[in-house]
Amino acid sequence: MEHIKDILPGKVSTKPEELFCYGFDASLRQGIPSAVVRPSNTDEVSRVAAFAYKNKISIIPRGAGSGMTGGSVPLNGSIVISFEGMSRLIDIDEKNMVAVVEPGIINAHLQNSLESVELFYPPDPASMEFCTIGGNVAENAGGPRAIKYGVTRDYVLGLEVVLADGSVVTTGGKTFKGVVGYDLTRLLVGSEGTLGIITKVFLKVLPLPKEIVTLLCIFPEMKNAVLAVPKITALGIIPRTLEFMDHDAIRAVENYKPVGLPLDAEAILLIEVDGRHGQVSEEAEMIAAVCASLGAEIKIAEDAFSRKHLWESRRAISPALYNMAPTKINEDIVVPRGRIPEMIDALRGIAQKHNIKIVNFGHAGDGNIHVNIMTDKNDKEEYQRATDAVKDIFEATLKLEGTISGEHGIGLTKSPYLGMELSKENIGLMKAVKNVFDPVGILNPGKIFP
Amino acid sequence: MEHIKDILPGKVSTKPEELFCYGFDASLRQGIPSAVVRPSNTDEVSRVAAFAYKNKISIIPRGAGSGMTGGSVPLNGSIVISFEGMSRLIDIDEKNMVAVVEPGIINAHLQNSLESVELFYPPDPASMEFCTIGGNVAENAGGPRAIKYGVTRDYVLGLEVVLADGSVVTTGGKTFKGVVGYDLTRLLVGSEGTLGIITKVFLKVLPLPKEIVTLLCIFPEMKNAVLAVPKITALGIIPRTLEFMDHDAIRAVENYKPVGLPLDAEAILLIEVDGRHGQVSEEAEMIAAVCASLGAEIKIAEDAFSRKHLWESRRAISPALYNMAPTKINEDIVVPRGRIPEMIDALRGIAQKHNIKIVNFGHAGDGNIHVNIMTDKNDKEEYQRATDAVKDIFEATLKLEGTISGEHGIGLTKSPYLGMELSKENIGLMKAVKNVFDPVGILNPGKIFP
Repeated sequence: MEHIKDILPGKVSTKPEELFCYGFDASLRQGIPSAVVRPSNTDEVSRVAAFAYKNKISIIPRGAGSGMTGGSVPLNGSIVISFEGMSRLIDIDEKNMVAVVEPGIINAHLQNSLESVELFYPPDPASMEFCTIGGNVAENAGGPRAIKYGVTRDYVLGLEVVLADGSVVTTGGKTFKGVVGYDLTRLLVGSEGTLGIITKVFLKVLPLPKEIVTLLCIFPEMKNAVLAVPKITALGIIPRTLEFMDHDAIRAVENYKPVGLPLDAEAILLIEVDGRHGQVSEEAEMIAAVCASLGAEIKIAEDAFSRKHLWESRRAISPALYNMAPTKINEDIVVPRGRIPEMIDALRGIAQKHNIKIVNFGHAGDGNIHVNIMTDKNDKEEYQRATDAVKDIFEATLKLEGTISGEHGIGLTKSPYLGMELSKENIGLMKAVKNVFDPVGILNPGKIFP
Repeated sequence: MEHIKDILPGKVSTKPEELFCYGFDASLRQGIPSAVVRPSNTDEVSRVAAFAYKNKISIIPRGAGSGMTGGSVPLNGSIVISFEGMSRLIDIDEKNMVAVVEPGIINAHLQNSLESVELFYPPDPASMEFCTIGGNVAENAGGPRAIKYGVTRDYVLGLEVVLADGSVVTTGGKTFKGVVGYDLTRLLVGSEGTLGIITKVFLKVLPLPKEIVTLLCIFPEMKNAVLAVPKITALGIIPRTLEFMDHDAIRAVENYKPVGLPLDAEAILLIEVDGRHGQVSEEAEMIAAVCASLGAEIKIAEDAFSRKHLWESRRAISPALYNMAPTKINEDIVVPRGRIPEMIDALRGIAQKHNIKIVNFGHAGDGNIHVNIMTDKNDKEEYQRATDAVKDIFEATLKLEGTISGEHGIGLTKSPYLGMELSKENIGLMKAVKNVFDPVGILNPGKIFP
């Protein structure tokens, strides 16, 4: 039998240590692939797909492996296609406000290149310094700026994808509008590598905002932090970020890396406004006034250096949490914005019921809360309570008209819960669509569907 | 055999005059249905679909029949489902910034209800006073405000749809983010009634902008009008509309309904900015300065009455054109924004080549140009030249990396040209997706695909 090494000589590894490293992602799930392939162009991806199709071997496209739900974790024996060799910034088309990139480009690299010509690509997942645009597209990644600027989907104008059989299809293109046939572009966005392999991305870009001001608002009372959100948008201002940290997140950060947050504060809002000179400082003052009237202590930063300082607490959350407990079960729920207080109450109840530590932070403006159950997977009894809590969290979320995943995807870790949110008919349609794109079932199998 | 009248007694008409009236839309294409059904709720739609499925009769969902490409024109003998009886505004959920509506609600009615509680639904197709939200979703309607606020797709959070066999599926919901499974919501948006029948729509709404200022900028030279667009966005301002009219459109309007536009002007930009008090007038002044530096004469309106006056010319274009010639072939192309000058040149060349009148107006900020070939379909020879020009226009559009439909859809009128833009593989995928949703082929057949 022909081997994948014959298809792309010199670009295939079967070394055990590499197979191991390409077998897990940030979800810490693990599989062992039979090979890791690093193509340099679309044609090579196409040849790998055609080989896999013919031989009925699974293929798993992989960006940086920074996904939280196991989207890039291979089934044992499958082929991982890794995009280090396809990370070019093909074009910044300034006149048309479009960037064309290969999937392996790092989000922050794209951002930096764009900034140097006064352009701006808003989606900013927490992993932006190392995650790839291909992965962002596959998961429909969000980030703090989504409240004002939307998510990855809102910037993908078109895609080049390799289908399961190796054929190449382009959807959309460089125009900001277009209604020619079905919206396959947005069907592919968020499909987690289960419908096609992304080989080129056309992205809409914006003019770089002229000015940014950051406010750190420290609330003695949680309920006032929550009240501030609708009051801010009622001013006619949509901040570029509206991040939220609860009491336990604050304490975790201060224990890990003291930045001077009061340990008795119940909540913090980290708010950023951007826009034209003049306009921005005016808006920052309006927001500061609203938060102050609700009892918050405010710190304002107008230059990049002080802004970075204010963001330190937010950026420190993830590592700080690992200081609290060895295992973090990180969920990514969304409720309609106005229902955040009810959800926070429900989370408190669930923590008490299961006698488990839950730390919350996230994107208050979107209703997107990152719920972190802090536990130890080696403590079987506690871990079981944590697992039970997950189901309760999803039940409470859905009862509040929410969704069990806002920006992390379903992947492996959430697939057992898919049926809690979607009806059988809905899942049936999705599976039938999957079958259209991948009749042999070789594209990232085992993901999304239970 | 059971008759559709038995399914929904009292809600089915087979009167010839009604069948005639429900047989055409704004494309002026015509078919004669066998029945018009006016359901009152989802269950009734479901029963109609189940009947049609069982008896293999085509069903055509219809809003106001204001579509430009024949999306709601029935095949002879099919059943039209008309949504006059499902036009309720089910809920304005102010706390969560979501509106829930039935498909038959008129766009402007929704806008007015929202405005009364200081909320805002941006998509504003020219037909907004009579078109329905169901039709807007089916066609992914745009409008002047798309440059700042996006199109219908960007506001649809979830849908309830009746599938071909009568089963009911809900996609998405009330959250602003969500990545649970494939994005069926956005697959259905713009699918022109060929995948399912929309029975409920969850829409994202925004805070109503506090203030609007309108500028009418009259340019002696076309090239300067085109230059103004990137100069405005480079200021860090995204206007809420950036509408464009060429010389012939200006003359047509002045002949039809004089509003005092100079007949020698080559182009007009109608620009609107919205936002907070103070901010808006400042931005209007910045835009006025840019346009004045490019030789434009500027009229500014800050109150609703004067704003309406400035919009009169833009609103008069469509009727004015019918004063010019009895038949208007209205195309809806988009080019990447920076390529508008090249497209305008190409259109001039095509008009000369075919010795035909072409009038252009549209959404300059999006690169979306409404190209109107003015002709007389009773003049066979001229009409043939006009038809030949259409193909040249599409060829020129695609050569400039554009798309042949920005917001009108494909429907009947553009389906012969689908293959000019999309590859066989791409169309093949779309047809296979269609087959998943509609295996018997009863949902709005004959649309989109040639």
